[in-house]
Amino acid sequence: MVKVGVVGYGVIGQRLADGVALQEDMELVGVADVSPTLAVRALKEKGMPYDLYIAVPENKELFDKAGIPVSGTLEDLVQKVDVILDATSAGVGARNKELYKKYNKKAIFQGGEKNDVADVFFHGYANYEKGLGKQFLKLTSCNTTGLIRAVDCLDREVGIEKVAITIIRRVADPGDYHRGLTNALQVDKAPNHQAVDLMTIMPHVDATGILVHTPVTHGHIITVVATPKREIGKEEVLKYFNQHPRIRVVRLADGFLGNASLFRYARDLGNPRGDMYEIAVFEETIVNSGKDIMFAINIPQEAVVIPENMDAIRAAMEMQTDRLEAVALTNKYLGMGKWMEK
Amino acid sequence: MVKVGVVGYGVIGQRLADGVALQEDMELVGVADVSPTLAVRALKEKGMPYDLYIAVPENKELFDKAGIPVSGTLEDLVQKVDVILDATSAGVGARNKELYKKYNKKAIFQGGEKNDVADVFFHGYANYEKGLGKQFLKLTSCNTTGLIRAVDCLDREVGIEKVAITIIRRVADPGDYHRGLTNALQVDKAPNHQAVDLMTIMPHVDATGILVHTPVTHGHIITVVATPKREIGKEEVLKYFNQHPRIRVVRLADGFLGNASLFRYARDLGNPRGDMYEIAVFEETIVNSGKDIMFAINIPQEAVVIPENMDAIRAAMEMQTDRLEAVALTNKYLGMGKWMEK
Amino acid sequence: MVKVGVVGYGVIGQRLADGVALQEDMELVGVADVSPTLAVRALKEKGMPYDLYIAVPENKELFDKAGIPVSGTLEDLVQKVDVILDATSAGVGARNKELYKKYNKKAIFQGGEKNDVADVFFHGYANYEKGLGKQFLKLTSCNTTGLIRAVDCLDREVGIEKVAITIIRRVADPGDYHRGLTNALQVDKAPNHQAVDLMTIMPHVDATGILVHTPVTHGHIITVVATPKREIGKEEVLKYFNQHPRIRVVRLADGFLGNASLFRYARDLGNPRGDMYEIAVFEETIVNSGKDIMFAINIPQEAVVIPENMDAIRAAMEMQTDRLEAVALTNKYLGMGKWMEK
Amino acid sequence: MVKVGVVGYGVIGQRLADGVALQEDMELVGVADVSPTLAVRALKEKGMPYDLYIAVPENKELFDKAGIPVSGTLEDLVQKVDVILDATSAGVGARNKELYKKYNKKAIFQGGEKNDVADVFFHGYANYEKGLGKQFLKLTSCNTTGLIRAVDCLDREVGIEKVAITIIRRVADPGDYHRGLTNALQVDKAPNHQAVDLMTIMPHVDATGILVHTPVTHGHIITVVATPKREIGKEEVLKYFNQHPRIRVVRLADGFLGNASLFRYARDLGNPRGDMYEIAVFEETIVNSGKDIMFAINIPQEAVVIPENMDAIRAAMEMQTDRLEAVALTNKYLGMGKWMEK
Repeated sequence: MVKVGVVGYGVIGQRLADGVALQEDMELVGVADVSPTLAVRALKEKGMPYDLYIAVPENKELFDKAGIPVSGTLEDLVQKVDVILDATSAGVGARNKELYKKYNKKAIFQGGEKNDVADVFFHGYANYEKGLGKQFLKLTSCNTTGLIRAVDCLDREVGIEKVAITIIRRVADPGDYHRGLTNALQVDKAPNHQAVDLMTIMPHVDATGILVHTPVTHGHIITVVATPKREIGKEEVLKYFNQHPRIRVVRLADGFLGNASLFRYARDLGNPRGDMYEIAVFEETIVNSGKDIMFAINIPQEAVVIPENMDAIRAAMEMQTDRLEAVALTNKYLGMGKWMEK
Repeated sequence: MVKVGVVGYGVIGQRLADGVALQEDMELVGVADVSPTLAVRALKEKGMPYDLYIAVPENKELFDKAGIPVSGTLEDLVQKVDVILDATSAGVGARNKELYKKYNKKAIFQGGEKNDVADVFFHGYANYEKGLGKQFLKLTSCNTTGLIRAVDCLDREVGIEKVAITIIRRVADPGDYHRGLTNALQVDKAPNHQAVDLMTIMPHVDATGILVHTPVTHGHIITVVATPKREIGKEEVLKYFNQHPRIRVVRLADGFLGNASLFRYARDLGNPRGDMYEIAVFEETIVNSGKDIMFAINIPQEAVVIPENMDAIRAAMEMQTDRLEAVALTNKYLGMGKWMEK
Repeated sequence: MVKVGVVGYGVIGQRLADGVALQEDMELVGVADVSPTLAVRALKEKGMPYDLYIAVPENKELFDKAGIPVSGTLEDLVQKVDVILDATSAGVGARNKELYKKYNKKAIFQGGEKNDVADVFFHGYANYEKGLGKQFLKLTSCNTTGLIRAVDCLDREVGIEKVAITIIRRVADPGDYHRGLTNALQVDKAPNHQAVDLMTIMPHVDATGILVHTPVTHGHIITVVATPKREIGKEEVLKYFNQHPRIRVVRLADGFLGNASLFRYARDLGNPRGDMYEIAVFEETIVNSGKDIMFAINIPQEAVVIPENMDAIRAAMEMQTDRLEAVALTNKYLGMGKWMEK
Repeated sequence: MVKVGVVGYGVIGQRLADGVALQEDMELVGVADVSPTLAVRALKEKGMPYDLYIAVPENKELFDKAGIPVSGTLEDLVQKVDVILDATSAGVGARNKELYKKYNKKAIFQGGEKNDVADVFFHGYANYEKGLGKQFLKLTSCNTTGLIRAVDCLDREVGIEKVAITIIRRVADPGDYHRGLTNALQVDKAPNHQAVDLMTIMPHVDATGILVHTPVTHGHIITVVATPKREIGKEEVLKYFNQHPRIRVVRLADGFLGNASLFRYARDLGNPRGDMYEIAVFEETIVNSGKDIMFAINIPQEAVVIPENMDAIRAAMEMQTDRLEAVALTNKYLGMGKWMEK
């Protein structure tokens, strides 16, 4: 059993902890945070299923006041684990790294950290082998993680030369009050970082793109114009997507009209927090543009990176050396692709 | 065991079915709907925990095509149960009523139906006794249900003469594409129907109010200016709200900043669908206005009426004749008020 | 002086009337509508700068009650003019056409009508010649009008073979209460009609695309991936766009961050209604994707079609037979491209 | 002619400048800002109708690069004027005050500054006399300004003892990208500052209230529960509002459905920037709540404070000593109340 700690118990950290708890070959030792946030209060109301460590010992009093039991400090947690999933705010991970080095522990950082925090920039499906045995890995961001799933899926089948992507980005998560946009679309400088990151992970693909922020909370939508190495039609594209356990093909005709339908569906499935680990492809958006193929995908930003984080633990700890064996275990424990059996 | 059927498996119907399934003294016989909606597809993906009956037999082919097993027709379902929870679209319930009469079954309608569909306009806490043994009950709408909880709570303690309410209404549920509002506040004619409905349930209170629609999806917020029969301060108000198992007092200072915080918190609690049965009172909004008392509450529109529907079954079926005994059982089976024990 | 009538005094009709009033070689005879809408009430409060005709004579009483002077019926208006700009709701134009035929008048329909309502599907810059002397013209919709401006601009310079477009559509206009979307992105079936329409106007270009609705009101944003006949870089693209009087190149660095910045800027310019006739290209979004060129444009949906409607009058009435002469006059009278002189 | 300078050329500053330019007994000497913002670029594109002074001389190069002519520094401007309207960001006005003192000039600050920046907290209609001859005045914020107009209107007629207000606040202005809220309602601590400010201006009224932020941009909506000194019905309330040149009574039945209708109407009126100086009362919201009166008003946040700022100049410069004479001149030059003549 690989022992895992989660540092930063926010939107991503909570889901990482839940994901680790589901992996039968891992043990979640505990989670750490700096103050009694709503997430920590919910942990308490649930009866403390995970032990809590505090990252800023001076804040102990705040936790006491809120009646929240504390099992130790962040430094205590680090010593008890084999590997840390660091899901702190951007920049904090780089500082925490010193602590992980001090105790010679492995750590996996999220997309918000700078690339040089890690030895390798990692994606479970696209470059699993590069992560094998490394001490510090950095995951791709939510958009890039989902985008690469789709592009890698086609690339392994037919070869992809080039992608031009348009990211229609949700600007905040449900419940965010510290950021937002009201009745405005905001355009970013091109190329967006997701295209650049895709090229770092998949250096044989030429990628560029434009990102537009939109005032919604339930999932990014990305349109992809991909240039394949050989001609490929809608049916073939559908076939490959349908075989991928982290890609769910959905139909507008069935009522999947956009990001909010997928969020509702995940809630109605009874998924914890209404989360969905899969990206979705909208079947009716797949069209040819000359020899290019164009399609739209949905990225559930809160949960999409969880599977690739589990993969990263497998790679860093060399739990599996084979890519497909590793992702298959992650998928199994997370219950991914079960809809494919039907 | 009282046998219950749920007709209409949409936003409310799904939650009613889940609520009934939790009542240890009731049996959920099945649910009915007209077509393979996303909610029905989710039911199938979950492995059909509830039997499905179809309301429009001609649509059978649609269900077959989607691979969804059907246990019979709506008429079959009605014959198998003691009581129906009708959660169909406004107006459909009135038509369905003929079927319920044909088989002499009891039925409980939701707030969207006209009042004359039922023998009594019902609220679990406020007028439980009026529902005892009745054949047809109509529940108050989500806003009115939550509002009455708060007003009835104070009324039973100090007496309330008059309320002037401002409803800041969420305009759609998460995942709704058939209705919406974009960058606009919409004002309705006063008094709003919620004030009128409150007076129907609590005829000794004078109520009026203004309703403004806002382009959000996570919970209505209502401000109440209540005139009590005797002077009452913030501490006393807080005491009464804190004792009520269907009212949760929350603090801005703890991070409960509005309707979206409560939705996030319910997701983080692991509540199915991220639902919350309780209304919330924002502690820091309680102020005196002369001898009046003013405060703001949050109404989680998707789930708030579930407890009162369970109460309605208890009343209609005369499972309990005592109001407090009835609501206590509902609360127990739904797990309400557990936070109060800590 | 060509005599013009505007039928339908809504969002588009009001702006068409204002546009005609600015053309020194046209005379606005009057406008027609069915009831005393807010737009008609504003016309009255301004002192009736335009004569008003009513399309439904039975509604005369409503106008009287609101104190709004009426100059006659729609049928009266049709008889007084040479050409009608029909800006009624989709489908109404097709019915009105019978009246225009009865009096043998020319008419120009908007993008919401079906193509077969007209003899030619028209765009001022792209196919002016096709409209010359025709009785019935149909304009492209707002998105298509703006999109074709950009594509035609490059096509005339370097030749465009193919475009793959992503339309990030604003879902309602400011002040719309009859339609809207709340916290959701909605995906449409591909290809979108704008791509199909572009191919009707520019049959030598292969076009496809995906459209996503977003809950905002200030302008659509379109990303275009265009395949030119020869290699072309950002500087050359910029040069062509900068020379076009109906295209405004703006910089994120100057504060033009998206559709809402452009709306604010138009208000601050003192443009009537805060309107902008030009599309905008965001300079920092222009990038190469292999030999393709990618960029993002903004479409101010309320006013963008006004210039091409003026062009259409010029073509239908054969006021100018030369394309560039015609559009130059429209531009001059609308004050377009003045910023280019500085 | 009183010489006026406007410092801070943002949302409020631009409108103050336009307002001063319309006052026939004032002269707008110039406006000042720190950098070539979009507002300043629009000023340039309009041909510099107002002279521009720069507040940070070191930024001169930025203006030169953008081709924007500069007439001097802020210090130059201050020396040329009799009175400054300071519309800088909150806190900057307090620093600028030192400069105004150095040259012994009068200055009027906006609602964002702290009260102690000024000798008097001012509202044109409610306490004009207090501003007479003072050196430093501070205006009430947009919400408070509009709210006091309505409360003062009734107070002068029947006497108001107490108000309980609910502010449904728009969270950003059209074009704002630096702040926003997405799919959330945010609740503030009670009482809100607007209630407290109202009591500072009208000390004989007891006021409290709750403020809820909503993700829209076109106008705040406030519901007021007012306790009058004698019984008063809807007709009488309407009569007083209808007589007030800064209050516009509108009807839902006519199509004024909320804040966005009013914004659209102002655009359709041809008002510069689509602005409206008046608050609006929604006629169908006026109801009695026992002996209290309840109603909803709309506050056009961008422009509502302009008239009271003009009043403030009149008071500070003692241009008129009589309150009604002063506000009448402001109204006349701004064209307010013209709709009342019809």
